[in-house]
Amino acid sequence: MKFEDYKKIIEKKLDEYLEIKYPEKIYKSMRYSVLNGGKRLRPIMLLETIKMITGDYVIGLPSACAIEMLHCQSLIHDDLPCMDNDDYRRGKLTNHKVYGESTAILAGDALLSFAPQIIINYSNVDKVTKIKILNEFFNAAGVYGIIAGQIMDLDSEGKDISYETLSYIHSKKTSALFESAIRIGSILANVENDILNELTKFAQYFGMAFQISDDIIDATQSFEVLGKTPKKDEKVSKATFVKFFGLDESKIKLNYYCERCCDILENNKFKSKIFIELVNSIKKRVN
Amino acid sequence: MKFEDYKKIIEKKLDEYLEIKYPEKIYKSMRYSVLNGGKRLRPIMLLETIKMITGDYVIGLPSACAIEMLHCQSLIHDDLPCMDNDDYRRGKLTNHKVYGESTAILAGDALLSFAPQIIINYSNVDKVTKIKILNEFFNAAGVYGIIAGQIMDLDSEGKDISYETLSYIHSKKTSALFESAIRIGSILANVENDILNELTKFAQYFGMAFQISDDIIDATQSFEVLGKTPKKDEKVSKATFVKFFGLDESKIKLNYYCERCCDILENNKFKSKIFIELVNSIKKRVN
Repeated sequence: MKFEDYKKIIEKKLDEYLEIKYPEKIYKSMRYSVLNGGKRLRPIMLLETIKMITGDYVIGLPSACAIEMLHCQSLIHDDLPCMDNDDYRRGKLTNHKVYGESTAILAGDALLSFAPQIIINYSNVDKVTKIKILNEFFNAAGVYGIIAGQIMDLDSEGKDISYETLSYIHSKKTSALFESAIRIGSILANVENDILNELTKFAQYFGMAFQISDDIIDATQSFEVLGKTPKKDEKVSKATFVKFFGLDESKIKLNYYCERCCDILENNKFKSKIFIELVNSIKKRVN
Repeated sequence: MKFEDYKKIIEKKLDEYLEIKYPEKIYKSMRYSVLNGGKRLRPIMLLETIKMITGDYVIGLPSACAIEMLHCQSLIHDDLPCMDNDDYRRGKLTNHKVYGESTAILAGDALLSFAPQIIINYSNVDKVTKIKILNEFFNAAGVYGIIAGQIMDLDSEGKDISYETLSYIHSKKTSALFESAIRIGSILANVENDILNELTKFAQYFGMAFQISDDIIDATQSFEVLGKTPKKDEKVSKATFVKFFGLDESKIKLNYYCERCCDILENNKFKSKIFIELVNSIKKRVN
């Protein structure tokens, strides 16, 4: 399986699940953000986890789509005027710029219910596993995950914060969703607890590396590369690795987390070209 | 069991479940709206459904609290400036007026994950039942329920809409949550399908009666009685029963739905003082 193959399969499923019904406006708004050309990193990682362990990935498709919908929900709400106030995302107008703020908020809310219902109604697994997966999903979505990161992120704007708080924000805002993707994949692959723990660590390191690379490219790249307004973090004085450590030290930290990811793959004899490619792609983002 | 007894038990549980953790701000914002003196109609109806059929209600407490959290989530987001733009709710400042818009949006998002996790982690029922309950919860929360009603409601402002659309909005925006409460109660009481259908109809009629009474008191009562700015519906030219039928005809329709509720209780020999009291209290609201 190649990266692009996964991407196509995931996007076909997302399109299917999000078939337009009445009232059309809400479905169109949801589709606008979900079918908006994302990299699909999180669902690919979920599927690849299962494939790496069991040889097949099909059982993970509903959960993979649910995780991508959750990711899109968080982006729609993050982009709102009262949050990060972004007009562009992936080179296109953000949801609220196209559909208006009220519809954008409702589209996000709708995805937060739509996604777990995909797991409930389409996952071909026993009920115990389903409940486990749903719990992982909500751990990432709510006060134990993304929301905790986002509230601390907004709260830290313009403030001097500690390295602990910076790490906390990144681990919740970004790593939580990678963790959830890989943990759900692991649960569907029926792994033992020690393997689950190793894969969870991989996801945490990957999430940190990914967020540091995001901080670096926000500070150094143009609108054309980013697909959104650059240097936004600096403008609102957000807590970022670049602000905290400077550019060079941030790159060293990025490499550190990428190496830890590779160590885990090697030490556990996890054979996955996709994961190696993903880790390398993060390093390439900033060079 | 009296109304006030249920209320106390529910509020104690809500307080327990929403224990403040880090990051405190999000928990405080969630608590502000959830522990804000609501009537607790929906959780009481959920518990009373179980009690009416099985003689006990305790098994329903986690679901009852989840349904109340969902109700509060919908109110927090409905009150936002880009939605209904309300400064007051139950006589107190709305969530975004106290905590700011971004925190209010996140508190709503957080409740949408927190509530189903209460069902997952605290409901003492088998996994099949748990999945059924969760599905009912999301049917009410998402595009098949509240969100569908809210998007059509906003979309209809200032427009001439049909009676079908008005009924659709009310059934989704208001009845869906009563339906969900009573259906979850019925599932937990392990009723047969015909009884489930009768109780669902009861919830639908009750929801319509409740929303009509809401439309009437918005048009006729003062801030002191409402706890929020009166005549808001009229100001933004919302689709309401009062706008559509006028005050007298709306009261006739309200009585019609209340009578249908009583019919269902009587025809099925459902013995519940609480339900009769609730139906009567809706009629009393407008007189």
